[in-house]
Amino acid sequence: MSVQWNEMIVADARALRASEIRDLLKVAERPEIISFAGGVPDPKLFPLATFNDVYGDLTGDEQAGRRSLQYSISEGLPGLRQWIANDLAATGAVRDIDNILVTCGAQQGLDMLARLLLEPGREIVLEKPSYLGAMQAFSMRRPSYVGIAMDDEGPVITELDAAFAKGARIAYLSPDFQNPTGRSYSLDRRLAVLETARKYGAVILEDAAYCKLAYEGESLPSLLALDDTQGDPDAGTVIQLGTFSKTLAPALRIGWITAPRPVIRQLVLMKQAGDLHVSTINQEIALRAASKLFPSHLETLQDAYRAKRDVMLSALEDFMPEGVTWSRPQGGMFVWLTLPDNINSRELLIDAMEDAKVAFVPGQAFFCDQSGINTARLSFATESSERIRDGIERLALLIRRKDNQ
Amino acid sequence: MSVQWNEMIVADARALRASEIRDLLKVAERPEIISFAGGVPDPKLFPLATFNDVYGDLTGDEQAGRRSLQYSISEGLPGLRQWIANDLAATGAVRDIDNILVTCGAQQGLDMLARLLLEPGREIVLEKPSYLGAMQAFSMRRPSYVGIAMDDEGPVITELDAAFAKGARIAYLSPDFQNPTGRSYSLDRRLAVLETARKYGAVILEDAAYCKLAYEGESLPSLLALDDTQGDPDAGTVIQLGTFSKTLAPALRIGWITAPRPVIRQLVLMKQAGDLHVSTINQEIALRAASKLFPSHLETLQDAYRAKRDVMLSALEDFMPEGVTWSRPQGGMFVWLTLPDNINSRELLIDAMEDAKVAFVPGQAFFCDQSGINTARLSFATESSERIRDGIERLALLIRRKDNQ
Repeated sequence: MSVQWNEMIVADARALRASEIRDLLKVAERPEIISFAGGVPDPKLFPLATFNDVYGDLTGDEQAGRRSLQYSISEGLPGLRQWIANDLAATGAVRDIDNILVTCGAQQGLDMLARLLLEPGREIVLEKPSYLGAMQAFSMRRPSYVGIAMDDEGPVITELDAAFAKGARIAYLSPDFQNPTGRSYSLDRRLAVLETARKYGAVILEDAAYCKLAYEGESLPSLLALDDTQGDPDAGTVIQLGTFSKTLAPALRIGWITAPRPVIRQLVLMKQAGDLHVSTINQEIALRAASKLFPSHLETLQDAYRAKRDVMLSALEDFMPEGVTWSRPQGGMFVWLTLPDNINSRELLIDAMEDAKVAFVPGQAFFCDQSGINTARLSFATESSERIRDGIERLALLIRRKDNQ
Repeated sequence: MSVQWNEMIVADARALRASEIRDLLKVAERPEIISFAGGVPDPKLFPLATFNDVYGDLTGDEQAGRRSLQYSISEGLPGLRQWIANDLAATGAVRDIDNILVTCGAQQGLDMLARLLLEPGREIVLEKPSYLGAMQAFSMRRPSYVGIAMDDEGPVITELDAAFAKGARIAYLSPDFQNPTGRSYSLDRRLAVLETARKYGAVILEDAAYCKLAYEGESLPSLLALDDTQGDPDAGTVIQLGTFSKTLAPALRIGWITAPRPVIRQLVLMKQAGDLHVSTINQEIALRAASKLFPSHLETLQDAYRAKRDVMLSALEDFMPEGVTWSRPQGGMFVWLTLPDNINSRELLIDAMEDAKVAFVPGQAFFCDQSGINTARLSFATESSERIRDGIERLALLIRRKDNQ
């Protein structure tokens, strides 16, 4: 008797579906296509020479080298967690190393928090639009999504309050340079979000993946830093996710969760059962590279991405027809485009790739309620300034043509 | 209102509990204790010089270096999957690269298969004793365990058949040099296991973590290699888990699952949602190191561990009192000790660490039915020959004393 796989696979796993868009965008990897579709950093900005140095130093050291190749504790290396705690302290957040778990990128943090806090039918509040990767991580727990509207300052508080009033107790929020829109919350809105969460004893999962990529103005404090814990690292309403993927290199797969200890303790058991720990050598390398490179490498990144953002924004200004609007991000990697209502960005993508040789991500996938069919995410991170300007011009031409049809 | 964590954490996550034994064994890390408790390879055998070379080559190469620091596909690097497919082919197993998913160690493979195939109450068949890490991974899905007895040749087939007859459709088995017992299945028993699984259309999860650490005799073919797929890589009843943790270095966190494509496709979506992919640079380094080092490095490992095993077995022979029996493993890292019925190995451990300065793992934790209170796992992997002999002598003295009480 042969195995009946369709019957064997459980409902939680069947909740995962392949993304059509992802398949479509495989074409975008061809060199003739100017791609604004990627969600990846510019590899030219990876500090390769420093990595060469730190790998050489580590594997050239008999004791440290062998230790970095061995199993290690599920919490993450103490030295790395101390570096993270210090970095959080510099932003005004009070956390001890016992409040930190090192994860395989922030993505694993999302997956682990989903396994800790979500179950079929339990509600989770999401921004409209929200980060697609988070929704993918959450979907395996089959929760019920409650989308809330955003305005220029952040989430609309009456909607957040209503979601909590109806029983939701978890919100996933990205206050800084959000993927996909690039927008940030104002200080007042941050405080109002926290106040609303506290009113209901709700938990905020704060995604801080892009917070170091700030290109202008004063950085605003994170929700974690603003949370009223009265100096107790185990108090408060915020669990924050961080990562080195945008500041050092994504391939190391180093992220972290910072949370009150009752949460971290259970997550450590989950990490142990799930994959034991994050690569020891990668943790050691990330610690050495960050200690060596920050903050000057962050300034290098900020300067390079700011310049690219400026090229994209001025090209949009120069070429886009009336009726098209876009975000003006103060950091991160993305500009969010809103097209005239009659343009479906998914259909536009097909023509854009075939005719204009330009790629982007249609915005609908980022909405938990499948709205936003006339929106698109554009990344300015990986293409050269020349190709960014060229690509925006080509895309604008196509939109003009579509809009006149 | 503050967050009520105990109410927020879902039942699946609450199923994870801290291990008392693990806490107890933290003391075993002190240098004055001779530890047979670890489940880790000997760091002195890590090929550090080769790692120094391959890291230097990779990060010294402008193109390959930058590529190895970037995000990569969830399936795993094609070159690494091809290496794994070739290695499987050499053992007689027919698998394409599309039948392989690279995971964060075999532990993540177990966790992912649990998420794919287990749900609360679904039955899974386990050997008595079985690998503790597997049970930890499975426990988050709250399955129902069906333990089956083992004899000298492997699982007792009447018990396996009865488990399937009663409705179980999944069995987790370790046919080679099992953790914790070190024992292997005979060829006849392997064939009988497969026949029984086929009779019911059941799936076998084959843990092959230790199969390369064979110290004598002819290696027997894996269940995967013996499975009757008629040359179709998507047919058959066996999903196999492999790893570089015991042959290269655990810190790389590189393992793999090989399975029919309907399974791999769903696991790839899960990997994408869960943590995107295994560290790109670690995959590239593992591929380069394995290509450079195998099979000669495997022979080095085999020679070193065989010598340690021989020291442990002869010390057991020389010092243990009558009534104590042990396994004689032909590979792997463990010897399994069975004490007289009146000795509780958990109580013995406390005295062993305090008085005899010797540590081991009490066997009960490896039994899904909490039996085996007079059993213990001894690892011969990390201590020197001198300390192995010394430690066994001290442990034997203590057992003699206990047995006479």
